[in-house]
Amino acid sequence: MIASQERIEKHINSLSKYTATPNQGTTRLTYSEEDLQARTYIKEQMKTYGLKVREDGLGNIFGKLEGEKKDAPSVIVGSHFDSVPNGGDYDGPAGVVAGLEIAALFQENHIKPAHPLEIIAMIEEEGSRFGGGLMGSRGIAGYLQKDDIKQLKDKNGISVPEAMEEIGLDPSLEVKRDPKTIKAFLEMHIEQGPLLEEEQISVGVVESIVGLTQLEVTISGKAGHAGTTPMDRRSDALVAAANIIAKLPQIAIEEGEGTVTTVGRHEVFPNGANVIPDKVTFSVDIRSSKEEHIKNVVQKVKDFIASYEKDNIQAEVEQSLYMQPKELNQEICSLLQASCEQLDISYITMHSGAGHDAMVLSDITEVGLIFVPSKDGLSHCPEEWTATHELAAGVEVLYETALKLTKKS
Amino acid sequence: MIASQERIEKHINSLSKYTATPNQGTTRLTYSEEDLQARTYIKEQMKTYGLKVREDGLGNIFGKLEGEKKDAPSVIVGSHFDSVPNGGDYDGPAGVVAGLEIAALFQENHIKPAHPLEIIAMIEEEGSRFGGGLMGSRGIAGYLQKDDIKQLKDKNGISVPEAMEEIGLDPSLEVKRDPKTIKAFLEMHIEQGPLLEEEQISVGVVESIVGLTQLEVTISGKAGHAGTTPMDRRSDALVAAANIIAKLPQIAIEEGEGTVTTVGRHEVFPNGANVIPDKVTFSVDIRSSKEEHIKNVVQKVKDFIASYEKDNIQAEVEQSLYMQPKELNQEICSLLQASCEQLDISYITMHSGAGHDAMVLSDITEVGLIFVPSKDGLSHCPEEWTATHELAAGVEVLYETALKLTKKS
Repeated sequence: MIASQERIEKHINSLSKYTATPNQGTTRLTYSEEDLQARTYIKEQMKTYGLKVREDGLGNIFGKLEGEKKDAPSVIVGSHFDSVPNGGDYDGPAGVVAGLEIAALFQENHIKPAHPLEIIAMIEEEGSRFGGGLMGSRGIAGYLQKDDIKQLKDKNGISVPEAMEEIGLDPSLEVKRDPKTIKAFLEMHIEQGPLLEEEQISVGVVESIVGLTQLEVTISGKAGHAGTTPMDRRSDALVAAANIIAKLPQIAIEEGEGTVTTVGRHEVFPNGANVIPDKVTFSVDIRSSKEEHIKNVVQKVKDFIASYEKDNIQAEVEQSLYMQPKELNQEICSLLQASCEQLDISYITMHSGAGHDAMVLSDITEVGLIFVPSKDGLSHCPEEWTATHELAAGVEVLYETALKLTKKS
Repeated sequence: MIASQERIEKHINSLSKYTATPNQGTTRLTYSEEDLQARTYIKEQMKTYGLKVREDGLGNIFGKLEGEKKDAPSVIVGSHFDSVPNGGDYDGPAGVVAGLEIAALFQENHIKPAHPLEIIAMIEEEGSRFGGGLMGSRGIAGYLQKDDIKQLKDKNGISVPEAMEEIGLDPSLEVKRDPKTIKAFLEMHIEQGPLLEEEQISVGVVESIVGLTQLEVTISGKAGHAGTTPMDRRSDALVAAANIIAKLPQIAIEEGEGTVTTVGRHEVFPNGANVIPDKVTFSVDIRSSKEEHIKNVVQKVKDFIASYEKDNIQAEVEQSLYMQPKELNQEICSLLQASCEQLDISYITMHSGAGHDAMVLSDITEVGLIFVPSKDGLSHCPEEWTATHELAAGVEVLYETALKLTKKS
């Protein structure tokens, strides 16, 4: 094994310290103090490995090793470094650390690539601060205009440019990246499911990624005193929301073929024990490997929510994100499998149930995505864990593949 | 009319400015910056009206006009000055302002009472910061020991003594008040219901107060990724909570006789759009004029919640507050009615659907409670409103009654 488990472990442990919830998992919201700490660490490491560092107009971090061919498109390797609230140390950072280690291996082995190698650390994949998710890669792919970005606000009403400036980033910089400057994108990610662990396989080469959409639902009712408003004169937004949320799993189950729905974010207003709630907002995350299932469920959820509108209960549904199910590039899939075989690392081909930045970037370049095992299949929680030697195996597969992609024309 | 509408309006308008949510109603949490601003204003007004001001070990404010009889028990007049989140300008403050105006009238008319007159402004009646509610009066009545108070924490884990010290209050002072030092307590409050307005009546003399209890429910499940966890392998705390909350209104309606249940406070953890919630906490407020209904509903709610416990879903229920329905003192009720007749102010006798500090203090002294009209019956919302002349009519009834109570031995 040529990848350094020591370096990999150091990076993972260092990044895990930049959390707003010490001892309760990683909480690293985009443009937070913890983002700035992690960002500073990543940029320093990139420089150590001889990369030229820049940040774009969303704060995505790029570390570039120039290639020998003038103006050749880059092979980009990396993932995101934000987290869900009280998440783990691997979802995102594992892929960023893979990029750092690949840069270290290029340096250590004095590799002079024909094509530039770029290591990337992207923001806001989880959507935990600004909603929607996949924000860094959607920006790079050109799906977010400057005006859209200004409209994106966190729950305290702070806009993306305002939040960026708070940690010294420059929102006036370019965001969209010219696809001609990219040759391929490689991402390593934890599986977030139990399959690799159960089968004792080191690497999953992803062939297709689930489609997903997110709805933002607002139920409005009428506030009132908990003691003086009779039951039959209430317009309780939370009771209406509860009736809706209780029913959503059934809609997913009836749709079948692995379709899932999740209400993860949920806020009640004004949120006082003796006040009838007048507003509830919640997210509905809908995923399936088949586009028709997603479309069916969106329609059923909208119809079901509309059926609760009456008198003083109003409902609004906005679709904040829609990503089609994606087939990944066959050529890079084959290269990744060849690398596994060459390195004698066990692998299987897989379908991904989670959306990833690779899914977005597959619209503008050729993309390869590999999974490494998740202990007990857990993710988005403090127990999320992948052994260092498993991370290292994944890194070696990506390194071999990056060598091939940066060499040939 | 001898009460000054100008003074009353000035006090209401001044206090309404001390809100954490300008233009979105009054949000004045106990021991917040806005509490300190309102507190400073109330203490200054009390001093202007010749009262001697002190605060107790919970930060309840007392302004005292000494009586001519040495060591005679006080007639206390007032209410609370905290609010629900995004509440109105009258629930609580109307009664505090009534106290201030009565002090002004005593001063203006050079009244030298036999018994001391005390104006009181109490904390945390709503329970919006520390839960449970009626905290100021429960402290005065001796229901909160110093050790209990230390245990009370807000949602950020800040304890009552810590929060008090942040605004310069002294938690080491006495809280419980010797009942022998109180002759009577008089409170004016907005009705928080439509009856007085609909009947065009100025004052409601309250004969009985609803009983109430609050449950704090915690539903625990298991976090997981919204995309990679199949529907049949989830332990979604929010789906379980939604099923429970959707059913509670039916339990209250079946119990009947005006029994009401409200889930007003509700928090989801970790609250990320793509994470299956592993914890939901919510309050259940249960009220009825008959104790048996409250007890029945508590049992039914507990049984119903327990029926959702399975595999990886656990439920905990704590009863954080219990107040029996109360009959108020007949003698003071008669005095209040006599004052209305003497002043030619229209009145009816009423039942109160809301709990009030008067309910708690009725355990240690004789209590009188009057209501003034609420526009459209609204309260606990920014639209809460009572006309100044209606406040003034209520003040005059309390002033007449306070004159009688402070005079006779």
